[in-house]
Order: sequence, then structure tokens, then C-alpha cells
Amino acid sequence: MTKLKVIAEPGKHEIVLVRDFDAPRELVFRAMTDPTLVSKWWGPHNVTTVVDQMEVKKGGVWRYVQRDADGNEFAFNGVYHEVTSPGRLVHTFEFEGMPGHVLLETITFEDHNGKTRIIDASVFQSIADRDGMIQSGMESGAAETWDRLEELLKTL
Amino acid sequence: MTKLKVIAEPGKHEIVLVRDFDAPRELVFRAMTDPTLVSKWWGPHNVTTVVDQMEVKKGGVWRYVQRDADGNEFAFNGVYHEVTSPGRLVHTFEFEGMPGHVLLETITFEDHNGKTRIIDASVFQSIADRDGMIQSGMESGAAETWDRLEELLKTL
Repeated sequence: MTKLKVIAEPGKHEIVLVRDFDAPRELVFRAMTDPTLVSKWWGPHNVTTVVDQMEVKKGGVWRYVQRDADGNEFAFNGVYHEVTSPGRLVHTFEFEGMPGHVLLETITFEDHNGKTRIIDASVFQSIADRDGMIQSGMESGAAETWDRLEELLKTL
Repeated sequence: MTKLKVIAEPGKHEIVLVRDFDAPRELVFRAMTDPTLVSKWWGPHNVTTVVDQMEVKKGGVWRYVQRDADGNEFAFNGVYHEVTSPGRLVHTFEFEGMPGHVLLETITFEDHNGKTRIIDASVFQSIADRDGMIQSGMESGAAETWDRLEELLKTL
């Protein structure tokens, strides 16, 4: 039983993730846009995530820092292009460990009878960047982080 | 003699524009990032462009409004993800006449013995969006606007 659907056609710039959550989209949208909630689910289990910056509006900058058990830090940042509650987020995304590689992520929140379908589509600057993201293990990472989101949503 | 090279492979999310300018890249970068200069070359000849907003830094919002002879207005906006003088600009781009369709544009300024090669690569949220941009006549529009930029550079 796979909860996460990953679409990444060969030779394209795009990755699309799709997953359903048993919660209304207002709640899922809040879990993705409230800094105190993001730190509770974003990233895999074995890291701690600190929200360093997060201004959820057009032009707002976000920056998350992950720290693992050995003290290694991994930081990510971007800027919001669109924030439409509770239907859509559009923002850029960059891993600071590979500076200069930027992607555009569009997250759509669809209502399905009170449940929420997330469609998370990223386009990369190159097909090589897209393929590199897949090879980095993003699919298992995304599956794990969205499992954590599902657990959090049950408590809200 | 084509000054503008346009690369848009079928079935891809991307358009790449390449053009050389006979000016150092500091000057070309300034022409693209100084609001008083942008209004002098951005867009085709038959419109007037007003820079409504333009904060050239990460998270800064830009918004340009074009007005034609009949008084019709066409507005465009985006946010800056990266501003690295004089080498690179990364920002989003949206035509307000088609809201919700956003692209990520990466402009690289290469030095070639004191001349500048601009590589302007855009990735779109969908291949349909990319194809729509081509069908809108962007190639002739880009050729014209970059001819205007070339003319402006001679005066700086």
C-alpha cells in the first residue's frame, strides 16, 4: 500500500507528488504554513528541523535548518511567489548544500469530501537537477516526511 | 542575421534565450536591475512600461505595467530568489492576464572578453504553459525588447 504517488517521467524537468490526507484542507494548509507546526513534521525522523525564517506572503523568505544526531546541519530556503489559503502555495526551493540549483514548487490543496489531496509539483532548472533530486532519495524522504505530517494532523 | 537564439525543444518545460551584447556585464546587469533603466527598454516599442514595484534583492517583488496606445494595460510580476551582481538573477514571472501561471527564470551574464552573453532560461509549470508562451509570439517580442536593450546600452 503506497500512500505517496510519485510521477517523474524520463527526460522531463518535473516531479509531481500526490498524496491524500484525512483532514480538511484548511488544516493541511495550516500545517504547511504555521512555523510552529512545520518544525514538527518537515524532514525525516532522524533530524530536528528549526524554522529560521518563514514569512508566508508573496516575497516572504523561508529558511529551514535540519540537524542530525551528529550535529551536521542541512539548510534549505526559498521565497514565496503565491500564498492562497487554503488552495495553493507557489514558492522557490534551494538546498544550501548545492547553491545555485533552484526549483519552483507549486502545492495545490484539493478538497475531496472533507479530505485533502495534495498535488506537489516541482519544476527544476535542468533535467540533470531533476534526476539528481530523484537519485538523492527524495522519494523515501518525502514519504517519511508526509507520514509525519499525517501523524501531526491527527493531533490538531 | 539572427541576434537572438531561441532553444525550445518539443515536449520540454523549458525555453532558453541566448544573445550577445557589446557591453561589459556590469552594465548589462545594471540595465536589468535599475528601475529607471528597465522602463526604457522592457517590452516592445509600441508600449510604455512603468516599473510599479522593483526591490532587487532576495524576496523582493517586481511588477511592471505596460500600456499601449489605446490605453490597454498589461501587468507582469514576480519575486527575486537570487540577485548576484553581475553574474546571475533568478526570479519568478507571472503575466497577470493569466493568473496562476508562474515560471522560474534564470538569467546568467557571461563575460566574453568584455562583451556579455545573456543566457535567459525559463522553466514553466507545464509543457502546455511553455507552448502557450511560444504561441503568444514571445520570440519576436523578446527579439524586439532585446534590440531596445542593445540601443540603450550604447547610450550608457
